[in-house]
Amino acid sequence: MNPKAEEILGLKCYKSVLDVPDEVDFAVIVVPSRIVPIVLEECGKKGVKAVQIISSGFKELGTPEGVELEKKIVEIGRKYNVRIIGPNTFGLVYTPSKINASFGPREVVEGSIAFITQSGALGIALMGWTILEEIGLSALVSEGNKCDVDEADLLEFFAQDPHTKVVTIYLEGFAPGEGRRFFEVAKKFTKIKPLIVVKGGRSELGEKAVASHTGSLAGSDKIYDAVFKQSGIIRALYIDQMFEWAIALSLGSSPAGSKVVAITNGGGAGVQFTDAACDWGLDFWTPLPEDIQSMFRKYMPPFGSPRNPVDLTGQAGIEAYEGAVYEALMEPRIGSVAVLYCRVAILDPMDFAKAVINAVNRARNEGVEKSVVVGAVGGIDTLEAIKYLRRNKIPAYATPERAAAALSAIHKWAKWVGIVKE
Amino acid sequence: MNPKAEEILGLKCYKSVLDVPDEVDFAVIVVPSRIVPIVLEECGKKGVKAVQIISSGFKELGTPEGVELEKKIVEIGRKYNVRIIGPNTFGLVYTPSKINASFGPREVVEGSIAFITQSGALGIALMGWTILEEIGLSALVSEGNKCDVDEADLLEFFAQDPHTKVVTIYLEGFAPGEGRRFFEVAKKFTKIKPLIVVKGGRSELGEKAVASHTGSLAGSDKIYDAVFKQSGIIRALYIDQMFEWAIALSLGSSPAGSKVVAITNGGGAGVQFTDAACDWGLDFWTPLPEDIQSMFRKYMPPFGSPRNPVDLTGQAGIEAYEGAVYEALMEPRIGSVAVLYCRVAILDPMDFAKAVINAVNRARNEGVEKSVVVGAVGGIDTLEAIKYLRRNKIPAYATPERAAAALSAIHKWAKWVGIVKE
Repeated sequence: MNPKAEEILGLKCYKSVLDVPDEVDFAVIVVPSRIVPIVLEECGKKGVKAVQIISSGFKELGTPEGVELEKKIVEIGRKYNVRIIGPNTFGLVYTPSKINASFGPREVVEGSIAFITQSGALGIALMGWTILEEIGLSALVSEGNKCDVDEADLLEFFAQDPHTKVVTIYLEGFAPGEGRRFFEVAKKFTKIKPLIVVKGGRSELGEKAVASHTGSLAGSDKIYDAVFKQSGIIRALYIDQMFEWAIALSLGSSPAGSKVVAITNGGGAGVQFTDAACDWGLDFWTPLPEDIQSMFRKYMPPFGSPRNPVDLTGQAGIEAYEGAVYEALMEPRIGSVAVLYCRVAILDPMDFAKAVINAVNRARNEGVEKSVVVGAVGGIDTLEAIKYLRRNKIPAYATPERAAAALSAIHKWAKWVGIVKE
Repeated sequence: MNPKAEEILGLKCYKSVLDVPDEVDFAVIVVPSRIVPIVLEECGKKGVKAVQIISSGFKELGTPEGVELEKKIVEIGRKYNVRIIGPNTFGLVYTPSKINASFGPREVVEGSIAFITQSGALGIALMGWTILEEIGLSALVSEGNKCDVDEADLLEFFAQDPHTKVVTIYLEGFAPGEGRRFFEVAKKFTKIKPLIVVKGGRSELGEKAVASHTGSLAGSDKIYDAVFKQSGIIRALYIDQMFEWAIALSLGSSPAGSKVVAITNGGGAGVQFTDAACDWGLDFWTPLPEDIQSMFRKYMPPFGSPRNPVDLTGQAGIEAYEGAVYEALMEPRIGSVAVLYCRVAILDPMDFAKAVINAVNRARNEGVEKSVVVGAVGGIDTLEAIKYLRRNKIPAYATPERAAAALSAIHKWAKWVGIVKE
């Protein structure tokens, strides 16, 4: 729609939504803020179910006029029962329907992670990041001023959305009253799907920064932390963690128990994983019982170590990795398997990746699934192998420590829903 | 040297080092372990100053024969005053002399970070990582069994090496007695150059993993932590942190004071930086005094925020960034500047990078240098801009949080040497 054009980019253009002959489900409003009420009123009359208002110039201005204008559009929305996303949003993406109604990048990678952001510029930039890192999204919603639709509403949608497995939120805070409902909805949501949140404004100074950014009440962080725990929300401190953990939860299978085993070709990588596993509260099972040690001993030279970390040594080839990972998957006392790899001349990273994938597939063919994460250290070819593993539904990371953190997110959710006992 | 060849890869081959007509400074020994003593003896007679023994089959075997053989080479080394690196090392790199005597990747990036590793496979894999991330190295030393040369010796070398600005160590532990000397040397070293250490085996379980890996005594972590602090060592927990901080310390200038200001085009990025700055103990200066706020207000629309984070808003272009960063550098009360960027359509990442570089150069031309770090969020073009900034000596990272952590490493060292007061 545009009052002045007959055609835009080869598509027929109407003067008003009221002129459109068909039904309209969803409208994107990008007109100067003072005209938004007029367009919204027309959408209401037309029976449009939901709109997204990209226009800014509302409450975020901090002026009485801005606040007044925002109140007005809320009233119009209620009158006609039109749900509003925004205003002051950069848009919305829903990959199952091939919708990208945002002014962010176009080539969003399809997947099953929904990303909700309360921050505009950071959200757009993170869209670019998901493309770079090949992080598959089902949806992306920039909330803007949240005059109507908020996180709680979106969680209710994503809870029943078959294309979404995990929800991530960059959250800064809530308007008065909004928080209580969010945590009520989140508590139900997390029993169905994992929810990972970065809460901006954790620190006292960050709280002040939030106040001058989105104007939300950041609130005492101790209270947030407690309520996050009670609601089964997985809290990430940093934005890269949020996405790395979402990859784990969107791609990976559930653990078969709490106990974690790490298989490596480098002792140092095993040590780093062990330390990080302890940092993140994983139940790292060491030393392994004698019978499991014997099982692993088959795949290593005499100077290897089967205690856990299971050190296949730098001599490990495809057979050693595939064999050890397969046996770890088939052993019912092991809950999750971390596979670590240091790029050495003897084993190409892509061969390593294929060995892991083969082991996972062989176990699956015998009816066994459990969570597997990979931490692979190396250069450009190792990065390619990490992406290849992700495309094959195995969460893979550039360091053992990140693999441990991601695995802990899987275990946290599994405990919350009772798949794994404490 | 090779007893069976006349020529290898077109180079003349001698049967023994004793047949070489010229002087020999450094020899790389890669013969079966039982022959190592013979070759080493010849090196001693020839007057070789240092050897690196890549061969394995010594103490790391855990057999009496292995221990005996290692003792023997130590004795030969002492007899002839030949310093020994290894055995069981993957080699050594020294980029100023274009030496890469390792079996890791060839195309090491030149720079001023020395990397010492007690772990083999992890060390080789991290060589690949430095190439991928364009992390410039002056040197890389795989210590192997440390039968003679250890971290303390290497620190003494790097302290006076003009090509090395920062030393990083992946450390697992010490042989009895070795630790005390290391910390004594480190305490002097850190007054001259920064030293960043990842200590594997921090956790109780990780300690056990170390015992079965390098056989070192990992030792109580609380003691390590205390001694690290007393020695001015910057402790990283994870390997990616170690390199990210080394980039900051090898490229960046020193702070002009403790106070940190962040300039951003996205409120969310500012909030994330603020939280991380508090996590890492930076002196984040907010709200700024009124006169400094007025100075920044010139570079932003009315809805921006000059309080700190200085939010130039998503409308910020080249002039706004360059102007604000330049003024922050020229303002004597500001110690360090973090420049944050969210990839938005209005400002290309490379233009952003150039704006920062211009501001830094303009200030430098007026005799002002202080530490600047960049946190830039986005896709592939943002990653290119990050690499471009690093090539122009500005430490740049993919998230605001990593920039904060890296800046904290700069400030920690500046406090330790008294450049910045507490």
